[in-house]
Amino acid sequence: MNNFTFYSPTEFVFGKGREYETGALVRKYGSKKVMIVYGGGSVVRSGLLERVTGVLKSAGVEYCLMGGVQPNPIDTKVYEGIAICRNKNVDMILAVGGGSVIDTAKAIAAGVLYDGDFWDFFAGKEKVTRALKVGVVLTIPAAGSEGSGNTVITKTDTLQKLSLRVPEVLRPVFAVMNPELTYTLPAFQTACGVADMMAHIMERYFTNTQDVEIADRLCEGTLLTIIKEARIVMEYPGNYGARANLMWAGTITHNGTCGVGCEEDWASHFLEHEVSAIYGVTHGAGLAVLFPAWMTWMAEHNVDKIVQYAVRVWGVPEEENKKKVALEGIQRLKEFFVSLGLPVTFKELGIDNPDISRLVDSLHRNKGEYVGNYVKLSRKDSEEIFKMACVI
Amino acid sequence: MNNFTFYSPTEFVFGKGREYETGALVRKYGSKKVMIVYGGGSVVRSGLLERVTGVLKSAGVEYCLMGGVQPNPIDTKVYEGIAICRNKNVDMILAVGGGSVIDTAKAIAAGVLYDGDFWDFFAGKEKVTRALKVGVVLTIPAAGSEGSGNTVITKTDTLQKLSLRVPEVLRPVFAVMNPELTYTLPAFQTACGVADMMAHIMERYFTNTQDVEIADRLCEGTLLTIIKEARIVMEYPGNYGARANLMWAGTITHNGTCGVGCEEDWASHFLEHEVSAIYGVTHGAGLAVLFPAWMTWMAEHNVDKIVQYAVRVWGVPEEENKKKVALEGIQRLKEFFVSLGLPVTFKELGIDNPDISRLVDSLHRNKGEYVGNYVKLSRKDSEEIFKMACVI
Repeated sequence: MNNFTFYSPTEFVFGKGREYETGALVRKYGSKKVMIVYGGGSVVRSGLLERVTGVLKSAGVEYCLMGGVQPNPIDTKVYEGIAICRNKNVDMILAVGGGSVIDTAKAIAAGVLYDGDFWDFFAGKEKVTRALKVGVVLTIPAAGSEGSGNTVITKTDTLQKLSLRVPEVLRPVFAVMNPELTYTLPAFQTACGVADMMAHIMERYFTNTQDVEIADRLCEGTLLTIIKEARIVMEYPGNYGARANLMWAGTITHNGTCGVGCEEDWASHFLEHEVSAIYGVTHGAGLAVLFPAWMTWMAEHNVDKIVQYAVRVWGVPEEENKKKVALEGIQRLKEFFVSLGLPVTFKELGIDNPDISRLVDSLHRNKGEYVGNYVKLSRKDSEEIFKMACVI
Repeated sequence: MNNFTFYSPTEFVFGKGREYETGALVRKYGSKKVMIVYGGGSVVRSGLLERVTGVLKSAGVEYCLMGGVQPNPIDTKVYEGIAICRNKNVDMILAVGGGSVIDTAKAIAAGVLYDGDFWDFFAGKEKVTRALKVGVVLTIPAAGSEGSGNTVITKTDTLQKLSLRVPEVLRPVFAVMNPELTYTLPAFQTACGVADMMAHIMERYFTNTQDVEIADRLCEGTLLTIIKEARIVMEYPGNYGARANLMWAGTITHNGTCGVGCEEDWASHFLEHEVSAIYGVTHGAGLAVLFPAWMTWMAEHNVDKIVQYAVRVWGVPEEENKKKVALEGIQRLKEFFVSLGLPVTFKELGIDNPDISRLVDSLHRNKGEYVGNYVKLSRKDSEEIFKMACVI
C-alpha cells in the first residue's frame, strides 16, 4: 500500500427533503450572497430551483442566477459566471445540478479571485491557491464532483477538454443529496451516470500497487451495489432505496473512499475525454465504449487485476486460463452496459468512422508521451485501444 | 435507507514515516502550544515520543506532557489534564497512543473550556459546544477514536463507564497513522483491536433498516479485509501490508464510512462496557465474549441479517433453515476469535462467576429500560445474553 492522505471535509446532507436545509447550510458556511449555477432548465420545470431560492430567501441569503450550463461544460460559461460574480459581489457559488454544473461552479470559484485568465489553471500555467466556497444541490449521481476537488472544462476554440485537481481549495463545503430529485432523470442519463461512477472506481481499482485489500474490497462492494441498484432503477425509476444507494455510491467513488493507497490509472478517462471533446458525446456513454476496450487490451498485457475483477465482481468461476476469465468478466460488463441501453462501440455511440489519428494526436499532445499507469500507454497502444472500441 | 449526514473532516495522514509531519500539522491547524497525552510508556521506549517532540520543536511548537493513561481511561486523568492545560495555556491536545489516550484527550479538550465538572457532559447534564482541537498520532488500530467524535470514560468512584458523542466538536482535526508503529504491539492487544473494529462494523450492520445495500457491502468488504489481514499479522507482526490494511480498516469502521443510512444497534458495546467497568477487562476481549452471545440470542429473535452476515462474510452456504445458517456463521466468528487467542466465554475472560444481576442492574440504570435497536433488549433479554456468554 502506498502512503496516502484521506481528507474529505465536505458535509454531505443526504435524504428526503434535505434541500430545504440549503439556506441554513449556506449561512453556516458564512455566505450572504450566492450565485446559483444550473443547467438546461429541468431544475426550473421540476420546481427545485424555486424551492431552493425560497429557502435562501427565508434564511436571509441574497442570490443571483446563471443557467444554461450544458453537458461537457465549456469555458465561455465560466467567463460569464466570473463576470457576474464580480459584478454582484458574490461570496459563494451554489451549484444546483450534476457534474457539468458543479465543474463549472468550481472553475468560476477559482477564476473570480484570480486576475488572469482562469484557463491558466487548466493549462498548468498557474496553481489555484484560493477560491470562493462552492455548495452543491445534487440532481444527477454520476460525476462524483460533489465530493471531489476536480473539475473538467472544455476550451471551445481548441476543443481541449482538460481537468484540474485542487482538493484543498475546490472541494465543495457541503452537498445536499435528495435521491427523490433523481426520479425524473431520463433513462439514458441514469445509465450514463452508472457507467461514469463505475469508471471512477475502476480507474482506481486497476492498479499494480500490492497489499491494497481494503481498497479492493471497498471498490468491489461499491461496484456490486451499483450493478444491483442500477438494474432496479432502470425498471422502477421511482424506487427510493435503489436511487438512494446509487446516489451515495456515486459520491464515494470519487471522494477518496475507494482506492486509498493505490496508484490510480485514469487512461480510460483521458481516452474518453478526447472523444467527448471532439464528437460531443455524453461522457458516461463514451466511457461505456472506451473502458471495455481498454480492459480487453489489458487482458493481453496485464491480466491479473482484470481476473480478480471478473471473479469478485461478476462471479466468473476461477480457472487456470487467466485471459479467458478476464474476457468473460469484460463480456459481462458489456452485457450489463447493453442492458442499460448504453453503447459499447464507436458505431453505437453514433461515430461511424472515428478519426483515430486525430484522437491519438490530441490525447498525447494533452497528456504526454505515455498515458495511464496500470500499463503506460504509448501512441501505438492508445491507437490499438481506440481501434478495439470500433469492433469490440 | 434513512436520511443521514456524512461529515468526516479529519485529515488522515497515512503511511510510512508520516509522524515526521506532526509538527507541520499542528502548525497548520493553528496551534502553538500542545499538551501531549500518552499511555504507559511504550511510546517512550519505542522512541516515538522523542521523534514527535523533536518535530514539534523543529516546527516551533511548545509542548508539555501528560503520560500514564491506562486502558479503560478514567476521570482522574481527565481532571489532571484539564489542570495542566489551564496552567500552561495549552491550545491543542496531541494524543500519542490508542483509543484510551485519544478518548482522554477529547474529554480534556472539552473540559478545559468548561467552568463546571467535565463529567456533566457524560452524565447528560450539559452539552459540549466547544473544545480545544485534538490531533492524533495513532499507535493502536482498534477504537477508531482517531476518526470519531466519541469518547468513553469511566468514573472511578461509581465505576460508571459512559460514552459521549459530539462529532461536530470532538472529532480530531488530524490523525497521523504509520502502520510501522504497530509492529511491536503485543499479539493479544492486536487481537483485541481486531475484535473491537469488527464490533464497530457489526453494531451498524445488524439493523432493521431496509435498502442499505451500499452500507452492507462496505461493512462486509471491511470485515473480509480485517479477517484476512488479522490472520497475517498474527503470524507476521512486521508485515507492512497487513498492518496497513488493518489500520485503515480500523478507522473506517468508526468515522461514518460504514453504516450510512442505517439505524445502529450498540447493545453489545453497552453490555461489554458494564463488564469492563466492573471487572477491568480489555474492551476488545470483552467484545469477543459478548458479541457472539448477543448474535446467538438474535439467531432466535431476529435472524435475517445474521443469515446475510453468515453467507456473505463467512461463506456459509445458503439453505432453508435460517437459524442453522446463522449459528454456523457465529461459530466461524468464534473460531476466528479463538484462533487469534481471544476469549469467547466469561470464564476464558478470567471471570468465573460473573455477577449477572449486578451487570444487568448497572446496564439498565445507565442505559434505560431497553437497550439496542436490532431487538430492543429488556432486563430479561440482557440477562439471557449475559448467561449465554457464560456457556457459549
